[in-house]
Amino acid sequence: MSAMTITSRDVARLAGVSQPTVSRALRGDARVSAATRERVTRAADALGYVPSEAGRSLVTRRTRRIGTVVTDLANPFYPHLVGPLHDELERHGYRMMMFAERSDSKVATERLLDGSLDGVVLMTSKIDSMLPAELTRRGLPYVFLNRESGDGRGDAAVVDNHLGGRLAADLVAGLGHRHIGGIFGPQDTTTGRERELGFRLALAEHGLAVQAGAVRHGPFDFAAGHALLAEVLAATPRPTAVFCGSDAIAIGALNAALGAGLRVPEDLTVIGFDDIPMASWEAFRLTTVSHDLVEMAAGAARLLIGRIETEEARDEGEGPRRVVSVPRLVERGTHAGPPR
Amino acid sequence: MSAMTITSRDVARLAGVSQPTVSRALRGDARVSAATRERVTRAADALGYVPSEAGRSLVTRRTRRIGTVVTDLANPFYPHLVGPLHDELERHGYRMMMFAERSDSKVATERLLDGSLDGVVLMTSKIDSMLPAELTRRGLPYVFLNRESGDGRGDAAVVDNHLGGRLAADLVAGLGHRHIGGIFGPQDTTTGRERELGFRLALAEHGLAVQAGAVRHGPFDFAAGHALLAEVLAATPRPTAVFCGSDAIAIGALNAALGAGLRVPEDLTVIGFDDIPMASWEAFRLTTVSHDLVEMAAGAARLLIGRIETEEARDEGEGPRRVVSVPRLVERGTHAGPPR
Repeated sequence: MSAMTITSRDVARLAGVSQPTVSRALRGDARVSAATRERVTRAADALGYVPSEAGRSLVTRRTRRIGTVVTDLANPFYPHLVGPLHDELERHGYRMMMFAERSDSKVATERLLDGSLDGVVLMTSKIDSMLPAELTRRGLPYVFLNRESGDGRGDAAVVDNHLGGRLAADLVAGLGHRHIGGIFGPQDTTTGRERELGFRLALAEHGLAVQAGAVRHGPFDFAAGHALLAEVLAATPRPTAVFCGSDAIAIGALNAALGAGLRVPEDLTVIGFDDIPMASWEAFRLTTVSHDLVEMAAGAARLLIGRIETEEARDEGEGPRRVVSVPRLVERGTHAGPPR
Repeated sequence: MSAMTITSRDVARLAGVSQPTVSRALRGDARVSAATRERVTRAADALGYVPSEAGRSLVTRRTRRIGTVVTDLANPFYPHLVGPLHDELERHGYRMMMFAERSDSKVATERLLDGSLDGVVLMTSKIDSMLPAELTRRGLPYVFLNRESGDGRGDAAVVDNHLGGRLAADLVAGLGHRHIGGIFGPQDTTTGRERELGFRLALAEHGLAVQAGAVRHGPFDFAAGHALLAEVLAATPRPTAVFCGSDAIAIGALNAALGAGLRVPEDLTVIGFDDIPMASWEAFRLTTVSHDLVEMAAGAARLLIGRIETEEARDEGEGPRRVVSVPRLVERGTHAGPPR
């Protein structure tokens, strides 16, 4: 900051207007004529003047900053949401700040609420999280992305997780598998819970069930799939197909199968969920439930910006809005009939 | 913001002190006694008061925000730096803001310089970037992470890329390869340039050279390795070993080899650089040049915070500081002697 000596007063002097007019002109206030705005902009350019954020936000009460709460950036899934989210926010003139949420999230919550943000994107909320209620109470707009609340409160951009689970079950049942396992996501997330529920309900409609003893739950990551496959395959009789709650889990399971000398799909069928780019790599060719991550992220950004910029939309009267994308099955190389 | 009605005046009234004393007490100003600070803190807690960022930053001229400039979040490499960087900054009471740099980075530069940041981490700078000079001119501290400037200006936390390239060359030469190709990183980055240079110089010391026609350069990503392997292998005689400028490139090349029906390492040796977690997956078992990404990211955070918090360190008089980590070779399953 020390070298930034050009102030709005200098710009005002050069442009021959008052200092408040400079501020109004540079933030696009409609009370300033086009001619004046151009004179101010030219003066600001000539002097290399950059408006101060801190000063500006005290005037407009808008920071044009959006917080994004995510727990596990090293998971290959999240960058595929964070990138498109960043780009869509930027397209609307907002910047993204990243926050790592901890389970004891008092500090994180206070940071979200200190007045530096116009809104928040929640990507990794658990069903029992207190954060959404706290944000509502304090009047800070938020949107769920990918996951949502357990009680249907709050705007959300999600995929139809239940339908996705059903698609996986229909495939596995249709292939003739009778001994079926699952490495599902966390039961305290809507994504984990609904993918599992859809899978189980559709299996039941086929007269099948996930085999007792061949079910595990873990975080949506590589390590979970890698560690838990052996436990699932230790069930008797051994499952011939395993549905995984995410591609990251499935790719962990595929690597574990490789390490154990199992052939996929000859010995074992593995199905994922998300269709991240890695799923199509030659080393995996993962059969998975696909949905449009870019569109989901952009949808969340637009929902949130709508809440921020439209005062009526922030009224308690209007209910939560949801953008739900429709998943489809992508059949690649990790599914086959059960070994005889 | 609308529901945040508690102000520092309310806290002052409850604590029985002046409003400026509240501000000083809550930002840890030494002029406030311990007893007064405790009284103010208790009052603030009782009222649920959160200090306003915008107001605070006008007083202290510190925002405790660090900008991180990165181009390609979906690359599996960057999250392994961004995560540890975020954590180390948080440990020191700083928050991370992410910025996507574009080649025509006028907008990005102005955003970095608008007074909302205390410093900047540059992870994806190109050698000819004007950004570092602009940051220096405007007095905003910055640090290079992983990459650095071409002219040795600016603090930097890097690995010894030159040595890493040498280690790969020594392995390939020692295995008896004579037809050697390379998929190097961009020539306008120090990481790309130095890894290539170290590799070439060490090969020369073994009386070898990278084969003309079997060299390509690309971005440090999966797609580059995936697309360029076929071009490298089209050289005559066909290379039996390929050194890749990053693990992401190498894993792209491994998948392309798999798609082309080539056996690794029997038909082809592939060597990477970085040792990201994916390199050790059973599907890849990549032999690679390893360095400590967590320590490098933490080192960059500490260098930058030192510049921000120590006024003397910002003097022009003190030269740039570098933290250089030492790489080592990790031999897994993608190297062997040349096929006979």
